[in-house]
Amino acid sequence: MEIALLGGTGDIGEGLALRWARDTNHTVVIGSRDPEKAARRADDYQTLLADRDVAHNVVGLGNEAATERADVVVLSVPPEYAVSTVETVADGLSESDVLVSPAVSMNRDAAGFHATPPKAGSVAEAVAAAAPEGVSVVGAFQTLAAGALRNLDNEIESDTIVTGDDEEATALVASLAEEIDGLGALYGGPLAVTDLVESVTPLLINLAMNNDGLHDLGVRFE
Amino acid sequence: MEIALLGGTGDIGEGLALRWARDTNHTVVIGSRDPEKAARRADDYQTLLADRDVAHNVVGLGNEAATERADVVVLSVPPEYAVSTVETVADGLSESDVLVSPAVSMNRDAAGFHATPPKAGSVAEAVAAAAPEGVSVVGAFQTLAAGALRNLDNEIESDTIVTGDDEEATALVASLAEEIDGLGALYGGPLAVTDLVESVTPLLINLAMNNDGLHDLGVRFE
Repeated sequence: MEIALLGGTGDIGEGLALRWARDTNHTVVIGSRDPEKAARRADDYQTLLADRDVAHNVVGLGNEAATERADVVVLSVPPEYAVSTVETVADGLSESDVLVSPAVSMNRDAAGFHATPPKAGSVAEAVAAAAPEGVSVVGAFQTLAAGALRNLDNEIESDTIVTGDDEEATALVASLAEEIDGLGALYGGPLAVTDLVESVTPLLINLAMNNDGLHDLGVRFE
Repeated sequence: MEIALLGGTGDIGEGLALRWARDTNHTVVIGSRDPEKAARRADDYQTLLADRDVAHNVVGLGNEAATERADVVVLSVPPEYAVSTVETVADGLSESDVLVSPAVSMNRDAAGFHATPPKAGSVAEAVAAAAPEGVSVVGAFQTLAAGALRNLDNEIESDTIVTGDDEEATALVASLAEEIDGLGALYGGPLAVTDLVESVTPLLINLAMNNDGLHDLGVRFE
């Protein structure tokens, strides 16, 4: 399986790339608007993995080329670029491809962080509206702390919630999630309830801000 | 300390009443619109506790009389009655009292459960707008599964998030929460971010519906 992480030079993209590279045999493709930057970061990740005796070929490409290659495309870009990124790479998506939306729209005021979902209801639904017909969109990975994921010394002990309207696509993303050591995946329902998942992210940040000793917080359902 | 559970004959009220009665020395007052029903349920709870060798005096009263007595008043009523209940008991609230809002407004469609917060932003903020001036309102206990709480054989292993604008009141409710065996309390921020906490409840119900073997789900932040 080839997994492309568009915006894979950023926080959550880096964490997912490193974890999938370390814990699975899937090909990990870093995508960026700037192919040179993607190639540099892919090299960095490979070096970092080699230091841990993990030999894994991480590839860096422009977002379009990364999408062409991949079976699963993770939109690990800031939420305001999620839709425009889908539009940019649309030609490279085929009907068997799965688009994964981990982004969350938030703002901050004196009270803390708030969810600011787009009009579609959630970032994942906005992505689905922009995706070529037949491409399945799955919401996942929103509640993972980038810092916890990126630091490979840190043992993950949390769950991610997978939402989507296509059973096969959501099951695929859930299984890719569970291939990451320590990560659990639960099915949250169709895309139409993804707003509830995206609301957990500002909640986690507020909890980390307001409670001593908590940072890079994850969530476990039990 | 005297804790009144208005609507304490219902699911979440029953669970909190039984846990506080078993795990603490606080006086637990069951409130209901119908004082006789409250007295009957208080007797039921005492019998249930006695069967477990817990001798605890549980009192049952009308909502107004329960509020008069109590230092902490938990609005464990359905969300559509939260504001009218506050209005009914307002005369019995003094400035040192703390009102606790555990209710969540939800609806359900084919996709699952959704959060349907009132115009105030959250049930807790609607309660605060209706509360007499000077009475502190704290959001708490929204994410606890009534079934898990009510069944005293079940060991609680989850967290509750406490939100509020008054530091002393939120700290008091957090400490009352943590006196329940196995329950953790985290500070979520001011009342203005309580919508994020109230959104977790429909998410938990969706997860329980969509994943085999999960029911009465709680959440732990780690």
